[in-house]
Amino acid sequence: MNGAESLVRTLAGGGVDVCFANPGTSEMHFVAALDQVEGIRSVLCLFEGVVTGAADGYARMTDKPAATLLHLGPGLANGLANLHNAKRARSPIVNIVGEHATFHRQYDAPLTSNIEALAGEYSGWLKTSINSRSVASDGASAVVAAMTPPGQIATLILPADTAWGVGGGIAGVPVPPSRAKVADERIRAAAEVLRPGRRTLLLLGDRSVRHEGLTLAACIGARTGAGLLAETSNARMSRGAGRPAIERVPYLVDAALKTLADYEHLILVGARPPVSFFGYPGQPSELQASGARLHVLADASEDQIDALARLADLVGAPARYQTPAPAPRLELPRSGGLDPASIAQVIGALLPENAIVCDESVTTGRNFFPATHGSAPHDWLQLTGGSIGLGIPLAIGAAVACPDRQVIALQADGSAMYTVQGLWTQARENLKVLTCIWSNRSYAILHGELAAVGVKSLGRSAVDLLSLDRPAIDWVGLSQGFGIQACRVETSEEFARAFRNGLEANGPCLIEVMI
Amino acid sequence: MNGAESLVRTLAGGGVDVCFANPGTSEMHFVAALDQVEGIRSVLCLFEGVVTGAADGYARMTDKPAATLLHLGPGLANGLANLHNAKRARSPIVNIVGEHATFHRQYDAPLTSNIEALAGEYSGWLKTSINSRSVASDGASAVVAAMTPPGQIATLILPADTAWGVGGGIAGVPVPPSRAKVADERIRAAAEVLRPGRRTLLLLGDRSVRHEGLTLAACIGARTGAGLLAETSNARMSRGAGRPAIERVPYLVDAALKTLADYEHLILVGARPPVSFFGYPGQPSELQASGARLHVLADASEDQIDALARLADLVGAPARYQTPAPAPRLELPRSGGLDPASIAQVIGALLPENAIVCDESVTTGRNFFPATHGSAPHDWLQLTGGSIGLGIPLAIGAAVACPDRQVIALQADGSAMYTVQGLWTQARENLKVLTCIWSNRSYAILHGELAAVGVKSLGRSAVDLLSLDRPAIDWVGLSQGFGIQACRVETSEEFARAFRNGLEANGPCLIEVMI
Repeated sequence: MNGAESLVRTLAGGGVDVCFANPGTSEMHFVAALDQVEGIRSVLCLFEGVVTGAADGYARMTDKPAATLLHLGPGLANGLANLHNAKRARSPIVNIVGEHATFHRQYDAPLTSNIEALAGEYSGWLKTSINSRSVASDGASAVVAAMTPPGQIATLILPADTAWGVGGGIAGVPVPPSRAKVADERIRAAAEVLRPGRRTLLLLGDRSVRHEGLTLAACIGARTGAGLLAETSNARMSRGAGRPAIERVPYLVDAALKTLADYEHLILVGARPPVSFFGYPGQPSELQASGARLHVLADASEDQIDALARLADLVGAPARYQTPAPAPRLELPRSGGLDPASIAQVIGALLPENAIVCDESVTTGRNFFPATHGSAPHDWLQLTGGSIGLGIPLAIGAAVACPDRQVIALQADGSAMYTVQGLWTQARENLKVLTCIWSNRSYAILHGELAAVGVKSLGRSAVDLLSLDRPAIDWVGLSQGFGIQACRVETSEEFARAFRNGLEANGPCLIEVMI
Repeated sequence: MNGAESLVRTLAGGGVDVCFANPGTSEMHFVAALDQVEGIRSVLCLFEGVVTGAADGYARMTDKPAATLLHLGPGLANGLANLHNAKRARSPIVNIVGEHATFHRQYDAPLTSNIEALAGEYSGWLKTSINSRSVASDGASAVVAAMTPPGQIATLILPADTAWGVGGGIAGVPVPPSRAKVADERIRAAAEVLRPGRRTLLLLGDRSVRHEGLTLAACIGARTGAGLLAETSNARMSRGAGRPAIERVPYLVDAALKTLADYEHLILVGARPPVSFFGYPGQPSELQASGARLHVLADASEDQIDALARLADLVGAPARYQTPAPAPRLELPRSGGLDPASIAQVIGALLPENAIVCDESVTTGRNFFPATHGSAPHDWLQLTGGSIGLGIPLAIGAAVACPDRQVIALQADGSAMYTVQGLWTQARENLKVLTCIWSNRSYAILHGELAAVGVKSLGRSAVDLLSLDRPAIDWVGLSQGFGIQACRVETSEEFARAFRNGLEANGPCLIEVMI
């Protein structure tokens, strides 16, 4: 057994059952080993940003790592932007990067670069294997590191000769540490600021925005009068009928300041302190009211569900305490033109039971949350790190993780272009992904951002840098070119019909929604 | 005048006349300043790898830097792979990366990362501006750094408030240093190893593979009997009728070892010592014969042309010394199927006068050099760093730099997929680029590489990771989706007809060549 086979068998034994790959020469033994070993599904992606974004989506839905397979420094570099998003989502990933054979590095061949320097920024764990006999135990360490709360990117750099040399046998993967329980004093401190008469917000993030956490938080809110909000961007949020209807901190600074203005205390549950996405002239970066106090109930690496349960007990709000009535499911709009409001209405009405929504809608999607509180129960995955180009890969990972569920990708056109090659992988794997492209043919967000930073008037050059017309991108043509059936819609009636057809398709579909 | 305007005016004054851009919020003032200032052409690219690859192509054809405009750490990350190639090509680039406002960084907002850590690996010069009054002088320093021989990537990180704050006026850009002259003793040492009876090779790279350097080298070779070879990958090589017909060090290790086996001395002129691209089991990394001696006539930062001219004088081979007769121009093949040989014949016959060839052909192109020695005079640009996904962007940069010349992009299908979004920019700017996609629907190079690393047999999983079929990518559909006219050819006659039509088009075209 060579090093590569010992590593692949170790990963498989440790529960890694998918490898999203874009291999090159230095990874050929790893590829051959994937052939030899049962239990790891290989998924080819035609660009490394698709690989890493798919691994993020897989991790969000399974809470365990997929492996990636990337080719040397530039291959890693192409994957970094979606590793940025994955790090912000705290997704566990075993990120495998091939490297020149150890004896070859010193010659500075054309593809040589300092892989560790490139990987450091987004890796919670990082190691270059140095020989074929220890590569399996390095792989076991990577799996544990990836699974260590709150979840992180474990990068294993694999010189080619550690793959082709004699392996040291399969390594056992230890059980990763579990989430730490929060000390009693923090529970009591939170209960203290939840006393009547105080204006307190529970700000939820990480695991607390899944079903159990939301339910507990809603019970606490109903009992104490505390407000409830989720972070602006969440890795995976449970939503729809039967789940508490909880809004997010708004993206726009003015709206966020207004939303948070009333609260004297913010209790953070897996959430970071609320800050604006960008800094703007004359605007504060911190979004809580001036003088408001922040309290941490549980951070992202701690057991947020346990902490919420204990807090609920302490304030006399056990689970199944009375929560607000569920939001109603929307009706379909009457036929008419498409805009963010009518699009939201169609989605709210038609979102199927148990859907996984991968949302990279940017400007078009700012009102999707209110419209979908009453939809059938679903999970909602967002762009956690703000690096656009995640949506298409994220949908791949979610669909590979959950083959029995419908994935709905809500996708801005400008953002889709960064990882458009991912459509091909959706076609090859025949994934149940319905992609809706919001075709506004511009970087619409930047028009608003220009005004927000104080730019008053734009000339031709600036307008050209924000627009995607001249020529308009034909998303139906692109989609078909990658092997995915597609159509274009211009009214809400057409959109609803195409959406229903897409749900019935036996594989991926794309709808270009003209707005 | 704000900081952004002072910077843009400084860049324009320093000769920077193009900005390849993929901006976001933090770059909005820079975008507005591009509006205010005459003399800098803004070119929007829909992915950052297109931005940096285009800047590389522009630099190779003009020997001066374009500016880039990238959005924060992930935007830079997406551009790194082609910065890797640009660094290996020694292309001057003023690489501008927007950053959060200085007061906002401490809050670790979602798009925050350590940009300097990401930029360090490929930047010869790196600075974060700290205030709006000094940003213009930082920009001037970046231009000089980019132009400092042998040419490098100068990364200027631009916090948003240094762009919107009050500027300090336009800064003058000093004259960059010129290339150092080589000491006489190195010229004499080279002449010594060129004496009769020694088996000596002139290995040419960097500036020595342009017209003047090649001519001088050919004179020296004709006078002394020395062999002549160019490096395997060259940033820009002058070729075709009237230029010496010089081959390259072969990519395949066995062929390279055989080619170099006879030489006792290698004189490096702007070239690196010859090493294999990858390390293989049981193969040497160094390609020269065992015991052969390496001599540096001039390194890449030195004046290679001057050194060659002085060497030519010393060995009695002034320019216009007798050189070999030019290679004949190929005839078109009779009609028949398409394979690497017949494709090479079509290109050899039809390459137009003064064309710029951007070659990312990978396996399909290994025989293009012999077939084009006798073509009309042209420049040939290669993949210098081995990071695939350069071809389409490189063609953009070359076409923007040289609007009166025809750009021919020879493009492997797998590699094209990494930066396919670049086709849209070719359409928007109506660039005179004729792209030939070698559609073999596989990572063909990896089949050979698998054998080279010793992998004997492949199962279904491994075969799937090397093939691009299931589904086949429809390049005609993709190209049209991006606004570029396209056709598909299956015989050499069809290819020749389509190639001629493409040369007559008033803008970009694409030919999907089925092989």
